[in-house]
Amino acid sequence: MKARILDGKKLALTMQGELANDVNRFVDQHRIRPGLATILVGENHPGRLYVKNKIRACEAVGIHSVHRELSGKCSTQDIVEVIHRLNQDPTVHGILIQLPLPKHLDEDTIIETVNPMKDVDGFGPASLGLLAAGRPRYLACTPYGVMQLLARHDISTVGKHVVVVGRSNIVGKPLALILVQKGIDATVSVCHSRTSNVANFTRQADIVVMAIGQAEFLRANMIKPGAVVIDVGMNRRADNSWTGDVAFAEVAEVASAITPVPGGVGPMTITMLLYNTLQAARLHQAQVKI
Amino acid sequence: MKARILDGKKLALTMQGELANDVNRFVDQHRIRPGLATILVGENHPGRLYVKNKIRACEAVGIHSVHRELSGKCSTQDIVEVIHRLNQDPTVHGILIQLPLPKHLDEDTIIETVNPMKDVDGFGPASLGLLAAGRPRYLACTPYGVMQLLARHDISTVGKHVVVVGRSNIVGKPLALILVQKGIDATVSVCHSRTSNVANFTRQADIVVMAIGQAEFLRANMIKPGAVVIDVGMNRRADNSWTGDVAFAEVAEVASAITPVPGGVGPMTITMLLYNTLQAARLHQAQVKI
Repeated sequence: MKARILDGKKLALTMQGELANDVNRFVDQHRIRPGLATILVGENHPGRLYVKNKIRACEAVGIHSVHRELSGKCSTQDIVEVIHRLNQDPTVHGILIQLPLPKHLDEDTIIETVNPMKDVDGFGPASLGLLAAGRPRYLACTPYGVMQLLARHDISTVGKHVVVVGRSNIVGKPLALILVQKGIDATVSVCHSRTSNVANFTRQADIVVMAIGQAEFLRANMIKPGAVVIDVGMNRRADNSWTGDVAFAEVAEVASAITPVPGGVGPMTITMLLYNTLQAARLHQAQVKI
Repeated sequence: MKARILDGKKLALTMQGELANDVNRFVDQHRIRPGLATILVGENHPGRLYVKNKIRACEAVGIHSVHRELSGKCSTQDIVEVIHRLNQDPTVHGILIQLPLPKHLDEDTIIETVNPMKDVDGFGPASLGLLAAGRPRYLACTPYGVMQLLARHDISTVGKHVVVVGRSNIVGKPLALILVQKGIDATVSVCHSRTSNVANFTRQADIVVMAIGQAEFLRANMIKPGAVVIDVGMNRRADNSWTGDVAFAEVAEVASAITPVPGGVGPMTITMLLYNTLQAARLHQAQVKI
């Protein structure tokens, strides 16, 4: 294998170690612990394990966590009331609603009920709007994690052609908005299910980011030799193991650097959630002082 | 010349005629006239003529307009107070602040003071955020005008490669966000001053949108035969005449369709401002009814 492995698990541990120090300093200074609330709706939620990992990661860096569970039969209004209480709670600086929500609920209303100052997921329209306006408050966690993976491995984006495959509100669109900002300065192409020839784009990319949720979609003949490949996909195989949107073994022979799945972008997403929570606590503290 | 001219002046007149009917119906139904407030700051503002044209266009379609002028020496707080009053005014549904503002003023604060329901320019973070989240309230007027120019000339964007040159908050970024939405379905590349080889991108485009403010930057050898070329640029020549970002005469020999400057995107921008103002009045009316 030729490619350098961009080890997200290792980087996440390093960054969580740094963050634990920052959290300690914050607690010493302000006598308040940053707090994250997680909300899980539904009994057999596929994201239960993620939420557990997030809570565990909070504990590891010294962030206080509270958890709310609602029945899968609850109403939009039930969740809205839970969020209102968390919005008011001064010990909670970030609120995370584990998606997806049961189909009968109004996801947009629920996401928008979160106080924008506590939108540490960075999915809410207020966070997206500030990002689009060029002065982000909270970056969406997965794009933020992708940017950190690149930066901490000294992979510059300036003047590079970055092809983002996927146009979700959670990854593709916010990542494209980050990449075109001044100082980041990538030339960005966004491909998706209606793109007529995805390979024509990925073959021209200096950096490819795959975020479509199709197992091993990106093959070795779809990239330029030496390209950097970031795999956001998490797809369950028949044998219950995980694979990304990239055919890892063969692409790693052509790429110069590549993220594994698992152990690539995933741990970075959680880490950036923790960073956003500390940032939310700082912003809260700055407001309180005024 | 081979290219079809996408005549924005003509289309704007047609659409303003349609809009005048819609405004009449709205007034008949609700006994309220849609209203637009314009704010101009500074004595020798380069946008004075634009504001005049906007006010005249309002009158032509039956939109009530109010105009506020402030001295170039006023403070951010002075403008904020004017905006607060307009935010409260039930006869004003849209508020337009003519940019640029004098350098000593806090443009972000001023733009964000506008009630998001009255942000008919579509520049504010709330409008950008809803667009990024896939459920726009007000589209920024220039990108909206570009989309109308394409749609009304039966130029589909589905599966097309659209290269947007320019990454401003007013044109490039919101246009890219519109183009990748489901149903619009373009594959989008965003180029800018740090792109290493712009021609390499524009040559691959089915549709090129130029929005960088550099006179006649796009030459005939930089596009693919048959491409559609949209010119958002407005650059003043030494003789005081206007030219776009496209070398019109030569590009029109290669393109299949092209917008002139003036008379292309410019009149569409004003028209979409009027559409957004009627839309704001409708949303206001819908709220009042609840």
